[in-house]
Amino acid sequence: MEVNNSPRVAVIVGSDSDLPVVEGCIKLLKNLGVQVEAFICSAHRTPDKAVIIAKEAHNKGIEVIIAAAGKAAHLPGVLAANTILPVIGIPVKTSLMGGLDSLLSIVQMPSGVPVATVGIDGAENAALLAVQILSLKHPELKDRLKKFREEMALKVEEKNNALREKLETD
Amino acid sequence: MEVNNSPRVAVIVGSDSDLPVVEGCIKLLKNLGVQVEAFICSAHRTPDKAVIIAKEAHNKGIEVIIAAAGKAAHLPGVLAANTILPVIGIPVKTSLMGGLDSLLSIVQMPSGVPVATVGIDGAENAALLAVQILSLKHPELKDRLKKFREEMALKVEEKNNALREKLETD
Amino acid sequence: MEVNNSPRVAVIVGSDSDLPVVEGCIKLLKNLGVQVEAFICSAHRTPDKAVIIAKEAHNKGIEVIIAAAGKAAHLPGVLAANTILPVIGIPVKTSLMGGLDSLLSIVQMPSGVPVATVGIDGAENAALLAVQILSLKHPELKDRLKKFREEMALKVEEKNNALREKLETD
Amino acid sequence: MEVNNSPRVAVIVGSDSDLPVVEGCIKLLKNLGVQVEAFICSAHRTPDKAVIIAKEAHNKGIEVIIAAAGKAAHLPGVLAANTILPVIGIPVKTSLMGGLDSLLSIVQMPSGVPVATVGIDGAENAALLAVQILSLKHPELKDRLKKFREEMALKVEEKNNALREKLETD
Amino acid sequence: MEVNNSPRVAVIVGSDSDLPVVEGCIKLLKNLGVQVEAFICSAHRTPDKAVIIAKEAHNKGIEVIIAAAGKAAHLPGVLAANTILPVIGIPVKTSLMGGLDSLLSIVQMPSGVPVATVGIDGAENAALLAVQILSLKHPELKDRLKKFREEMALKVEEKNNALREKLETD
Amino acid sequence: MEVNNSPRVAVIVGSDSDLPVVEGCIKLLKNLGVQVEAFICSAHRTPDKAVIIAKEAHNKGIEVIIAAAGKAAHLPGVLAANTILPVIGIPVKTSLMGGLDSLLSIVQMPSGVPVATVGIDGAENAALLAVQILSLKHPELKDRLKKFREEMALKVEEKNNALREKLETD
Amino acid sequence: MEVNNSPRVAVIVGSDSDLPVVEGCIKLLKNLGVQVEAFICSAHRTPDKAVIIAKEAHNKGIEVIIAAAGKAAHLPGVLAANTILPVIGIPVKTSLMGGLDSLLSIVQMPSGVPVATVGIDGAENAALLAVQILSLKHPELKDRLKKFREEMALKVEEKNNALREKLETD
Amino acid sequence: MEVNNSPRVAVIVGSDSDLPVVEGCIKLLKNLGVQVEAFICSAHRTPDKAVIIAKEAHNKGIEVIIAAAGKAAHLPGVLAANTILPVIGIPVKTSLMGGLDSLLSIVQMPSGVPVATVGIDGAENAALLAVQILSLKHPELKDRLKKFREEMALKVEEKNNALREKLETD
Repeated sequence: MEVNNSPRVAVIVGSDSDLPVVEGCIKLLKNLGVQVEAFICSAHRTPDKAVIIAKEAHNKGIEVIIAAAGKAAHLPGVLAANTILPVIGIPVKTSLMGGLDSLLSIVQMPSGVPVATVGIDGAENAALLAVQILSLKHPELKDRLKKFREEMALKVEEKNNALREKLETD
Repeated sequence: MEVNNSPRVAVIVGSDSDLPVVEGCIKLLKNLGVQVEAFICSAHRTPDKAVIIAKEAHNKGIEVIIAAAGKAAHLPGVLAANTILPVIGIPVKTSLMGGLDSLLSIVQMPSGVPVATVGIDGAENAALLAVQILSLKHPELKDRLKKFREEMALKVEEKNNALREKLETD
Repeated sequence: MEVNNSPRVAVIVGSDSDLPVVEGCIKLLKNLGVQVEAFICSAHRTPDKAVIIAKEAHNKGIEVIIAAAGKAAHLPGVLAANTILPVIGIPVKTSLMGGLDSLLSIVQMPSGVPVATVGIDGAENAALLAVQILSLKHPELKDRLKKFREEMALKVEEKNNALREKLETD
Repeated sequence: MEVNNSPRVAVIVGSDSDLPVVEGCIKLLKNLGVQVEAFICSAHRTPDKAVIIAKEAHNKGIEVIIAAAGKAAHLPGVLAANTILPVIGIPVKTSLMGGLDSLLSIVQMPSGVPVATVGIDGAENAALLAVQILSLKHPELKDRLKKFREEMALKVEEKNNALREKLETD
Repeated sequence: MEVNNSPRVAVIVGSDSDLPVVEGCIKLLKNLGVQVEAFICSAHRTPDKAVIIAKEAHNKGIEVIIAAAGKAAHLPGVLAANTILPVIGIPVKTSLMGGLDSLLSIVQMPSGVPVATVGIDGAENAALLAVQILSLKHPELKDRLKKFREEMALKVEEKNNALREKLETD
Repeated sequence: MEVNNSPRVAVIVGSDSDLPVVEGCIKLLKNLGVQVEAFICSAHRTPDKAVIIAKEAHNKGIEVIIAAAGKAAHLPGVLAANTILPVIGIPVKTSLMGGLDSLLSIVQMPSGVPVATVGIDGAENAALLAVQILSLKHPELKDRLKKFREEMALKVEEKNNALREKLETD
Repeated sequence: MEVNNSPRVAVIVGSDSDLPVVEGCIKLLKNLGVQVEAFICSAHRTPDKAVIIAKEAHNKGIEVIIAAAGKAAHLPGVLAANTILPVIGIPVKTSLMGGLDSLLSIVQMPSGVPVATVGIDGAENAALLAVQILSLKHPELKDRLKKFREEMALKVEEKNNALREKLETD
Repeated sequence: MEVNNSPRVAVIVGSDSDLPVVEGCIKLLKNLGVQVEAFICSAHRTPDKAVIIAKEAHNKGIEVIIAAAGKAAHLPGVLAANTILPVIGIPVKTSLMGGLDSLLSIVQMPSGVPVATVGIDGAENAALLAVQILSLKHPELKDRLKKFREEMALKVEEKNNALREKLETD
């Protein structure tokens, strides 16, 4: 661990069909200077693997776990039950009420084992939440977050200006 | 296993607050001549225990598992992921839409690992479903099931008669 | 019945528009060595037929009934009311909240007559649940189930390896 | 049938626990001069009885059937499948979202077999709808309906006057 | 009215965008020998017209009113408030939970003024319900309804036979 | 109108059972110096009255209409269809999902006839919204609104101080 | 302000992806003679800007604010908290139950700070509601509203006539 | 900051009526050795205060913010928009579907500004999540978390033993 003390996040999906959901998450984490370790691992199809990944995460230098899952989305909860690292859950959109099943299965955890839940398909927010958490220990991330927010505000402002110009010339 | 080949079911709840929900289930199973092994064991607070119970169930002579859980109700799914015995899930009523969170967290399992879900707080039906399943192998249960249904129909018929008498004399 | 004592399942849909939903179910049952008898039969359009199928199922050597239905999905419940065989219900996806109507109409059965409900459009899980139930009496199915699970886990693992290789070379 | 050609309605509940829901319905029907025949009869616990009641209703001089049921509320649909008399369904309030399960199980009937659904616990409206239907053939009911509506409007008007007096003197 | 005493139904939609929903309804009514009078008339955009249509319906020989509406679907209720003829409401599918807004706005009428609600987009069932209601007074409709049901059952049976043949030859 | 040009609001409920919901609304309006005219008047039980109240409101000097209704809550929409005054709708809490039926029946108005909807049982907010609207024309209301907000903020601040003192001395 | 005392509305969206939703709103406002000032401004990405726009709106002559937002749609509420001008909220359709998240996030405001909520994607109704509010102070708008309603009714009536002609010639 | 470098969390509620919800949260944080700073501060009634608290939090040594809010629960999102500290949101139970409004208003944040959402009324889990986050930087918290989990597991195990003894002696 001495060699590498850059911040490190595990991004885990339960099925390769959920990979597109987390692509933006992985990319954003890397852009903000966070090492990403990614896994496909199912709470139900490879339960032993899920337990092992969660239990070993801390010793492998991982500091935050992000897990995306849909329907009876147990993966984030199963991981959270096997580690004291913060686990961020991304409910994946489904055909049942647009993902309400995924959301409730992830967020309604019993007292004692929390999952930090973001919005449905909220992969970018999962990445940002992970970086906000990591920045407590890795202060260099704070500046990157601030810059990210400034650029985000700037983009809104540019679009606002474009709109107002367009409306004036209409 | 030779000594005891009577049908055998495990009834598992995630928390002692869910015990009242399964009391009727345990009682009905016993009344119908099924041996019951009960556990309190949480998918999130005692995850290792849950895995062990599921993995050992078959070798201990258990033929069906019934699990009740509420909110992000992962227990039935976690057990189902660790055994090929049929797992019956009972969604426990909660304050969120009356238990819709529990129901969706249990029933919407991913392809490959089913949970046989009954209605919210449907403990008696979980017992009956277990007996219907066991009766394939234990034919003596079939007669008890038929008798149970006949008595149930009789009770409805008696109430019907009482109602019709009452209305005529009104 | 003496001639043929291989496991046997009835798969019933209420309308031919629901046939595509159960195709994977029928195929998987056959692949796992289960005989399938299929019916189109409606709880509302051909109610007498539905009752007869349910009442005769046991004598025809059927051991588990699988029924798929949508909207006010009464078919599994009507069948369950007329047999003591285990009945597995598949709620079919609809336009109303993605099938919540089908799910609630199937799973919320009154005390006394359970339906083992799987997830919305969960036809493969209905097949697997049927095989898990049948394996109590037909032990040869246990090995096939174990093999199915191992292959399923292997596929997840292969995809995991592919992902990790891809990310390393990115 | 010659002796008695007054209008006649069957009011059916699936369980005696639903009787309080229909009491107001029965009373209102009688007050409006409609003969009521009441039954307790379950689509799932006494399925044969339900079918017989529906099939015989027409020959017994019944012209409209009212059925109240909760949860997976199949009773109105099962009755409707076995008669061409109009069937009015009353969804009974439950703990799941206040009766949404009952409502969807009754109203979302497949094409071909309608159930005329009223609101949750809408027993008085079921009675009035039955009388509105019967008044097509029994014109004497029209005057009673008009009088009922006038009295209803009068009550609203009286309360309105009381409120306005009270507010003026405040 | 003497000249024409064939059964007569008004079919009303609130907007021409709802016309496709009721087309099957109108066609089926005509096929079963019912005269149809159709209107586009909005509870909110042409409120006076809606009131007039409802108030005059009875005198124009209309015996049942069918109204389809979406979202805050007040049309059936507004019509029902202005007539004692039976009013059948068809909730039109919307983007909000697939039409739950339309359904609740139509079915949850206050005590005193019922609307006979059919399923979402259930136009064919609205027609059949109207005919079932009309058949109380117009007995010739009973035979047509019975024939309709027999043909419907036959179609199911034919599809069942086709399926079973196909599966045997697979 | 010359004599009295103080701001004036009509508060209308569909049933006296909804009066408690609007009591706070009426009181707050009066406290802020707005004249209130209250009515009990039902869209379904006294439909003509509802239309008349809406049509005459403008000429009687009313500038905003507030209407509270539950379940298939048509009253605000019916009023809005018969006036061009702004109509504020208060969805009344019901047993069905806590008032979702009332909310959807009020807010989902068709294009052309809006209802300004506040939260479920949001009677105080209906009053404040009315005053915010009226203050465009009656500038004296602006100061009262500002004072109301300042006092509201002060109360929060006082509670905050009390909490912080309590926690420090714990 | 003296130079320009025509009515004036701010239309604000949280993201340029919501612009298409309000286009009809802006166009209708202009058609009815209302000046429109449009902004892209996010409650979360440019929070300071949102506060400033709300606080300065009154002094800039704006009389009503319309804000459209989706998902955790805080924009209308944040604006309402920082002004006493009436704020109209438009919930934008999302994939979660068709926009129920947006609707609840906008309409369920705490006591003290109302948002006048229109239906999901109800941009035209937001414009009309704004004009109805403005017409209290700007009487010239009343005639335009009446004309708008008359034309709307006429269009319905024309379609009604077209339908009735078509059906008669069928 | 030099004097005091123990971990520090702000716990914020929008109204004193929400204080009981966070009491367990504050207590658990203190028990685990975390300093708590508590505020009552409303996103809508004291919006400036909310912005200031969020903006100053980092400089005051706060490392995580926990905010509880109900209905259109904007508080966590407003805080998150004004800080890069991790913000944990607790949706407070309401009468609308048991708090679904609060949950959706908190969790469905737009891309760019995440809120780490826990279950409805999940105050204890909010505390634990905060401690899991803080333990990345404050390693002494890790042992307390592990001990907390062990005790939690022990309690489940004790209840399990009590149940099994009781059942054996029944």
